[in-house]
Amino acid sequence: MSKKLEIMPLGGMGEVTKNMFAYETENEILIIDCGIGFPDYTMLGVDILLPDISYLEDKKDKIVGILLTHAHDDHIAGLPYILPKLPQIPVYGSKLTIGFAKDRCKETTITPEFIEIDKQEFSIGNFRIKPIPVTHSVPDGRHFVIHTPAGVVYHGSDFKFDEHPVDGVVSDYDSMKTAGDAGIDLLLSDSLRSERGGRTISESMLKETFQKEIKNTKGKFIVTVMSSNLHRIQQAIDVAEENNRKVAFVGRSIEQNIKTAESLGFIRLPHNILHKRKINKLPPHQVCVIIAGSQGQVGSSLERAAKNDHDLVSINPNDKVVFATEPIPGNEVFLYDAIDNISKLGVEIAYPDIRDETLHVSGHGNADELMRLVDLTKPKYIMPIGGAYRHMVQYKKLAIKLGYEKDRILILDTGDTLLLENGQAKMGKKIKLKDVIVDGSGVGDVGFVVLDDRRRMAESGIVVVVVLINKTTGKIIGQPEVISRGFVYMKNAKKLVNIISQKTTQILPKSIGKNQWSKLKPVIEKSLQNLIYKEIQRSPLILPVVREV
Amino acid sequence: MSKKLEIMPLGGMGEVTKNMFAYETENEILIIDCGIGFPDYTMLGVDILLPDISYLEDKKDKIVGILLTHAHDDHIAGLPYILPKLPQIPVYGSKLTIGFAKDRCKETTITPEFIEIDKQEFSIGNFRIKPIPVTHSVPDGRHFVIHTPAGVVYHGSDFKFDEHPVDGVVSDYDSMKTAGDAGIDLLLSDSLRSERGGRTISESMLKETFQKEIKNTKGKFIVTVMSSNLHRIQQAIDVAEENNRKVAFVGRSIEQNIKTAESLGFIRLPHNILHKRKINKLPPHQVCVIIAGSQGQVGSSLERAAKNDHDLVSINPNDKVVFATEPIPGNEVFLYDAIDNISKLGVEIAYPDIRDETLHVSGHGNADELMRLVDLTKPKYIMPIGGAYRHMVQYKKLAIKLGYEKDRILILDTGDTLLLENGQAKMGKKIKLKDVIVDGSGVGDVGFVVLDDRRRMAESGIVVVVVLINKTTGKIIGQPEVISRGFVYMKNAKKLVNIISQKTTQILPKSIGKNQWSKLKPVIEKSLQNLIYKEIQRSPLILPVVREV
Repeated sequence: MSKKLEIMPLGGMGEVTKNMFAYETENEILIIDCGIGFPDYTMLGVDILLPDISYLEDKKDKIVGILLTHAHDDHIAGLPYILPKLPQIPVYGSKLTIGFAKDRCKETTITPEFIEIDKQEFSIGNFRIKPIPVTHSVPDGRHFVIHTPAGVVYHGSDFKFDEHPVDGVVSDYDSMKTAGDAGIDLLLSDSLRSERGGRTISESMLKETFQKEIKNTKGKFIVTVMSSNLHRIQQAIDVAEENNRKVAFVGRSIEQNIKTAESLGFIRLPHNILHKRKINKLPPHQVCVIIAGSQGQVGSSLERAAKNDHDLVSINPNDKVVFATEPIPGNEVFLYDAIDNISKLGVEIAYPDIRDETLHVSGHGNADELMRLVDLTKPKYIMPIGGAYRHMVQYKKLAIKLGYEKDRILILDTGDTLLLENGQAKMGKKIKLKDVIVDGSGVGDVGFVVLDDRRRMAESGIVVVVVLINKTTGKIIGQPEVISRGFVYMKNAKKLVNIISQKTTQILPKSIGKNQWSKLKPVIEKSLQNLIYKEIQRSPLILPVVREV
Repeated sequence: MSKKLEIMPLGGMGEVTKNMFAYETENEILIIDCGIGFPDYTMLGVDILLPDISYLEDKKDKIVGILLTHAHDDHIAGLPYILPKLPQIPVYGSKLTIGFAKDRCKETTITPEFIEIDKQEFSIGNFRIKPIPVTHSVPDGRHFVIHTPAGVVYHGSDFKFDEHPVDGVVSDYDSMKTAGDAGIDLLLSDSLRSERGGRTISESMLKETFQKEIKNTKGKFIVTVMSSNLHRIQQAIDVAEENNRKVAFVGRSIEQNIKTAESLGFIRLPHNILHKRKINKLPPHQVCVIIAGSQGQVGSSLERAAKNDHDLVSINPNDKVVFATEPIPGNEVFLYDAIDNISKLGVEIAYPDIRDETLHVSGHGNADELMRLVDLTKPKYIMPIGGAYRHMVQYKKLAIKLGYEKDRILILDTGDTLLLENGQAKMGKKIKLKDVIVDGSGVGDVGFVVLDDRRRMAESGIVVVVVLINKTTGKIIGQPEVISRGFVYMKNAKKLVNIISQKTTQILPKSIGKNQWSKLKPVIEKSLQNLIYKEIQRSPLILPVVREV
């Protein structure tokens, strides 16, 4: 029997987030990453999205472990939701990645076995794995060379090639080359920044920026940054210390990450950290605040401070606020709202649009870096990952320029899989993938019917029509009652409500037979739909309530 | 008595869109612009926003006319909604601006008097007005020098200084200088691009881009562009003609604008325009399609074509799609969705992220152009307009660098007004402004209570609880009925619905006194709110329906 490996993205293909891959051989399944995704505008009220593990349902016994590439939430934060649905399997990752993964699982009842790996080759079941350190916007990330019965796969998740990383740990090019020389059948590679030519700027440039910004700041120096970007936080801390300012951390995500990172040796804190409750006890020019909410998220520490609504952080005219960040697509409105609100406080603000200095660099490699990984690993086949469809298309163009044949680069869409067999890769079977939705404490209990109803009510509200029927005579009792929410102002609504009520009376029979009332509902729904659209060009959800008494 | 002028923004301050200004003197009010605004994510189901004219309510007799600066919807499209609420007053504007304004009012019953102005000085009431042609992303725009009893105001709405405009009509610098030499007390100036240094690129650069992109395109050449950007459309038309392609226009907004612009002489069409129904009758390499939906708007022609769902335009592998556009903040997700969908069709796409060529230029001037207007007009005071708060702050910094005193630049927030008296400008009185919302055919009938309910239902749905009371005995009849929408999947909901129903029974008294049932509602609402949050961490809208029978 021939040796086969099937690679199945269970989330994340063409979506950037909620990354999860299943590597399946005849007897085993290795899972790589277990991330969350973020809802778009159409998914009303949804908190987060999860990969869909239904494919694993009847194959759970084959699963030998979960391997994590790096510590970002779109690669690890699905664990507390997904692990309880799988048999007890070990979770592998680098020191910081495991540290953050443990934090994510802290408030749950699960107690997975976490296994720290570093650079040495190790095995999960029959998968022999060589971890390769790479630079990214969170420290301690890894690529993996995965030896499978069907061939060698290089799993190249999110990375950049930063030659001057803040922690000094340069990507391990030698190991990449060694693996390439030994033969790679398939490269999975980050493709997010394939549209941009050249190389990304080194993260270490940010230090100079902070130095420039802190000069002449008479009040507090307030920096906002992604809470997992420990390199950038480290540089802000260092610059604050050099300028005799004490550093306070504000915001749950930043406080948590700093605590874990420090205990694991991934961040160096100065001796006198300022407790957030003591920010106002020091003269402002001795204070640096590193605050969460760099995307202007509603409810975040920064967003509240910007509206003068944070009990610990006030932003005053001599302060300076530095946005060492860039909006993630979809967040522009929130981020710029925060900037506008802070502008109104009369303080100086630094944000990318008004600075030539580098206030943000990407954690993902540009075209040159992406192709350098191809050069080093010399794979027979390539499957771009980690980007939207357009990014994978651009990646493919780059690889073709490098000399690859078209059919050596496989672009997968949601539900596609890849088959590696005897060192040859091709498109595999299709699998069904749905969005798994987390809303409040419910997982998967909000489906598309529910979301459609929400969309409808969000657009035009709801109209409830209550009809009572005498259960002995079958006669309609009195006038139908009409109640609306999110529809029109009540004072304007009176006329409309009367029309709706009259119309309902008209279409209702005087009396109906026993147990026939359920047939009334679709009739009421349809005629009111038409009536209301004609009257006011809106399509609220119509909810007929028919009861026998 | 001293001569006063009050300038009141009735919409648009710090919001970019829904522009409308009232210039009020002792006896007269002149209105400048009457635009619509666009809802943000929090305004669920809202179609458009309007300026708030409540301030004019008891002063309608003072209004002498409406003066339009240029033909963009955020300056003119409020007319069909606002004009019916004002006395019959004339509407002034340049030829194209009036043409587009007439189009906007076409489907209404109002018949305003439209008066075309060009470059000659004219009067509206006691306001003496000198129009000055300026370049922008729609042709035929004007600045206005407005002589008022309290001083001379330069109303400098949206502009750029394009030295090579497509229609050859350069901004009239001489008239600006003449006005400046004669003395300007107050300059109102566009400030949108104050964050960017230098100058914007000339619109005429786009021709070269189109020429490059059309070369080697074997299939249809499909261009999407803002439907009011006639200059850009003209260049696409010219390039198509030079390459022996016939041009078809697809999309209501583009078709309408082309028709009006051609009849007024603002666009030159080649002899053989291709009817949109004949696109598929010609060989693809002889076709150029100019299509609406450049922001990827859901339901637009381009968005449907991208999903292979347009009956006239199919996008095939040899075609090329050119996005001569940039996402308006907030539209990123839609635009990139369209790009991803077109990527999946396997056609070549050109969009700003992957081209060094100029695929979009702004219609607003950068810092140098903004300050050149200041240089030319030499105003005593300046009030930045047309930008968000952060843009006005940057504008102020530019003017200060140019030598202006801080207090000579007045930044207004929503509800602020400016007072010009004896040639001196200062902050005026505050006025109350609310968002006026258009939803379906209703204007102003959706208020914040309605929007709050929509938000609530969008987040977590609605739970309706029906309680029936015997009106003679006051006894509760049977079990309360619980119905939900947009809450949780019905199959998962059963348990929860039972809990809710039981809880309602528990908190209800066995019977209640006459006419006391209305007191039950808040009790039911509050206890179910708590119960549901405890059970599932969601906060649906609770709608108790209590009826006596």
